[in-house]
Amino acid sequence: MSVPSWNPRPGTLWHDPGLGMRLDVSRMDLPDDPFAGLDIAGAIAAMAALEKGAIANPDENREVGHYWLRDPELAPDPAQRTAIEEARRRIRAFVQEVHRGTVRPLIPGVDRFRHLLVVGIGGSALGPQFVADALGHSGDAMEMHFLDNTDPDGFDRVLRDDLDHELHRTLVVVISKSGGTRETRNGMFETEAAFERHALDFPRHAVAVTGEGSALEDYAKERGFLEVFPMWDWVGGRTSVTSAVGLLPMALQGLDIDAFLAGAREMDARTRETDPARNPAALLAAAWHHAGGGKGDRNLVMLPYKDRLLLLGRYLQQLVMESLGKEKDLSGNTVHQGITVYGNKGSTDQHAFVQQLRDGRDDAMVGFVQVLRDRDASSLLVEEDVTSGDYLLGFLLGTRAALAEAGRPSFTLTLPDVSPGSLGAVIALFERAVGLYASLVGINAYHQPGVEAGKKAASDVLALQRKVLAALREADGPLTAAELAAAVGSDDPETVGLVLEHAAANPDHRVSGEAGKTPWESRYAMTPGD
Amino acid sequence: MSVPSWNPRPGTLWHDPGLGMRLDVSRMDLPDDPFAGLDIAGAIAAMAALEKGAIANPDENREVGHYWLRDPELAPDPAQRTAIEEARRRIRAFVQEVHRGTVRPLIPGVDRFRHLLVVGIGGSALGPQFVADALGHSGDAMEMHFLDNTDPDGFDRVLRDDLDHELHRTLVVVISKSGGTRETRNGMFETEAAFERHALDFPRHAVAVTGEGSALEDYAKERGFLEVFPMWDWVGGRTSVTSAVGLLPMALQGLDIDAFLAGAREMDARTRETDPARNPAALLAAAWHHAGGGKGDRNLVMLPYKDRLLLLGRYLQQLVMESLGKEKDLSGNTVHQGITVYGNKGSTDQHAFVQQLRDGRDDAMVGFVQVLRDRDASSLLVEEDVTSGDYLLGFLLGTRAALAEAGRPSFTLTLPDVSPGSLGAVIALFERAVGLYASLVGINAYHQPGVEAGKKAASDVLALQRKVLAALREADGPLTAAELAAAVGSDDPETVGLVLEHAAANPDHRVSGEAGKTPWESRYAMTPGD
Repeated sequence: MSVPSWNPRPGTLWHDPGLGMRLDVSRMDLPDDPFAGLDIAGAIAAMAALEKGAIANPDENREVGHYWLRDPELAPDPAQRTAIEEARRRIRAFVQEVHRGTVRPLIPGVDRFRHLLVVGIGGSALGPQFVADALGHSGDAMEMHFLDNTDPDGFDRVLRDDLDHELHRTLVVVISKSGGTRETRNGMFETEAAFERHALDFPRHAVAVTGEGSALEDYAKERGFLEVFPMWDWVGGRTSVTSAVGLLPMALQGLDIDAFLAGAREMDARTRETDPARNPAALLAAAWHHAGGGKGDRNLVMLPYKDRLLLLGRYLQQLVMESLGKEKDLSGNTVHQGITVYGNKGSTDQHAFVQQLRDGRDDAMVGFVQVLRDRDASSLLVEEDVTSGDYLLGFLLGTRAALAEAGRPSFTLTLPDVSPGSLGAVIALFERAVGLYASLVGINAYHQPGVEAGKKAASDVLALQRKVLAALREADGPLTAAELAAAVGSDDPETVGLVLEHAAANPDHRVSGEAGKTPWESRYAMTPGD
Repeated sequence: MSVPSWNPRPGTLWHDPGLGMRLDVSRMDLPDDPFAGLDIAGAIAAMAALEKGAIANPDENREVGHYWLRDPELAPDPAQRTAIEEARRRIRAFVQEVHRGTVRPLIPGVDRFRHLLVVGIGGSALGPQFVADALGHSGDAMEMHFLDNTDPDGFDRVLRDDLDHELHRTLVVVISKSGGTRETRNGMFETEAAFERHALDFPRHAVAVTGEGSALEDYAKERGFLEVFPMWDWVGGRTSVTSAVGLLPMALQGLDIDAFLAGAREMDARTRETDPARNPAALLAAAWHHAGGGKGDRNLVMLPYKDRLLLLGRYLQQLVMESLGKEKDLSGNTVHQGITVYGNKGSTDQHAFVQQLRDGRDDAMVGFVQVLRDRDASSLLVEEDVTSGDYLLGFLLGTRAALAEAGRPSFTLTLPDVSPGSLGAVIALFERAVGLYASLVGINAYHQPGVEAGKKAASDVLALQRKVLAALREADGPLTAAELAAAVGSDDPETVGLVLEHAAANPDHRVSGEAGKTPWESRYAMTPGD
């Protein structure tokens, strides 16, 4: 791999003095024309059509409108524009009332909400979590907490360990686009129960972000939640951070959502550039395509050298893998596409897996992220003329050089700082790169058909559990999984056994087990109820 | 892929009623004899030799003794046994004194240390972090904090945001085996400076864990740290969590280190089993080998369905990738081995990347982790006969079934709970599986030669920075990177430019920059000092 010079050849470096950002793909071993053989013009045109309201998600017959969220003027339908602007206006007004304490807990002596608990999962949690962690400070207007799973102990950790004495001044934002996501619904129910344990009026502490007509909207209205903010079917969960999903928690935390939206909007403008060599999203998409042979044969390893960007890799894991990991292309051919993403932060990860990236399997491309600004104050010198931040840069450059020397590709994204504006720009850059890459390989980046099978199978497990518990209630003596499976007409004694084993390990269903020598010899019974 | 029955064929399920643990590899699509073509007997014998003191790390001429840490009787040299026992005894005595307040801050009114700040990176941080997060509660004896990088803002987040008003009752444990790790040294210096800002006597709050004769040991003794605990060259960083590296922070946090060691010791005993079909580590190693063709062609995606196990994937990423990601085999052939590991937690990750795992690139094997015990208390029903924990199991089983249906392999590890004992057992299981796998593919799992190049290159960057800053001090007017590179005799104007750009973005070196239209046209100067 040729070592790039500080004055790189055209098409390997994008530099924008206005944003203070730079993307250097000179170590991606690209051909002289990085776009050779790629219909990048077509991909950029497809993106332009999408922004004009073309149905870019044909399976679901939906528009894809997350770019409009940053620039409502672009929305093809005036009703959409109005909806975006109205939602933002309502968010600002609500947040102001919460911060001022005009919307507050109706509890004597409690002047305002101090904690924010976000209940959501996937696209309804990871964006808010990433942004909150990247931009949070101890002096924020509200302290942030998240429930992003259906783990009982995980609920207890937040609701009993962290917030038990603070629920009376906690505001809860429940986020589910469909309004039917089970993890989120369970989290809401458990949160509601925690409020009831403390004799607190949950709806007076609750806000929903959800699609019109969803079960969550109905529930929120029936119960009298403080507010319901909208989600729209033309915004996908993994690209929803510039909708109310991301903006409401950010604004409540006290972060500058206007700067965040402006950063995204400016990057959107840059990445509409039709000359691909001057379009950083096109450069990224082409570099990924070249590195992985258009089939994702290299994992994308994100290494931001900044603690605050620890969740960037996880955020992009969702954005990239859920968008690109597809069985079929748009013509219906089986392609099994995708790009795997992982990575935490540098230089920490150097001590975890750079050994493999440099010496081991040659299956990665590294995305270095450099942040120019070290900290708010000045630094002490840890050696003559060297600060801890100089070390951080030294490790980034050193590892990059060591990878290049071993012929392992990498690109580097440079940011001026970690701020609402730069985060908005980074998110918009990767959103657009993913969209362009999807066009290059001919797939629909905006659906996720592969997750339905798992949800359906999970629902079958729970239906089977209900039957097994009912049968156990009627049974005379302890039964094995096989016996109970036969009793309920199931041909899946394994699942029956696993459900029983779990039930017996917990008090909730009054199931007791006599362990057998092997799991399938265990016998289960139900203790009579009170 | 055949759907396994609840009564699986031999060699696809390991179940241990004593530990309450189970490993099910029936969905790994293994041949009838999972060990066919593998010298598993040789691998188990090599591990036995290693445990008897054979030089298993020939490049570095070191023994590999992490198994002795759980069972000192096994150490081949009585001096090692004594050292392990003596270290444990000293840890227990010191921790007791800290908890009782007989070792305490010499500050009026402060009865004892309440916060623990661990400064380390890689093997000296990830184990303690994983265990602290998995087992921590709000009522722990000490509240845990970590510095695991050389990010100035990251230091500020912990030292100024979290601990600024608590430093007077914070105990600091600095962990570096070599005693020369720059990130850790920088973290220690920054911590020391924070204590000085508060007019606190840092050495009276400081403990070191390091190798004999290291620079850190010298520093700790010179400055009068409270204690220095040992690390030994026969314990590798990534397998050091059962040494003082992990045990001291755990015990200070108030966690049961005896149960942790016992769990690891019991799993060590199970995984010495010479019948590979009854040895869970051998089953895992064989399953990985089969899935990835002995070349790591499948990524290992760890999906623990438990919030507390969020860091398991990161812990194993380090353990597996640094151990197996090697250029050469033991005979010196170039093999570029490795297994890539990533994953956070289920069901959360289902919403991030199961789309790709099921439909997209067929390059993964999933490691499901099930925990039988849901929570401390009983659960509410979120639907008839269904708790949030039933949903968690339902999602695990549903996703597992959906992956199997698509021909995507997975294994499932079942734990009774998340406790010191089960965590010790899990760690020991994967340590042994990694060691056996390394034997099967003929590599040294215990060195990391590939990280040296990056460290050396980083050190070169900092040396160049010193020269550039010196030259800038002597310069008459603003200079470009190319001009400064020429002035210091460097043929690397790019690195010179990046160093200058970073210096100009921060106040510490008094460098100012006039931005050019392109980065290489920017000009830099130094403001005279006071």
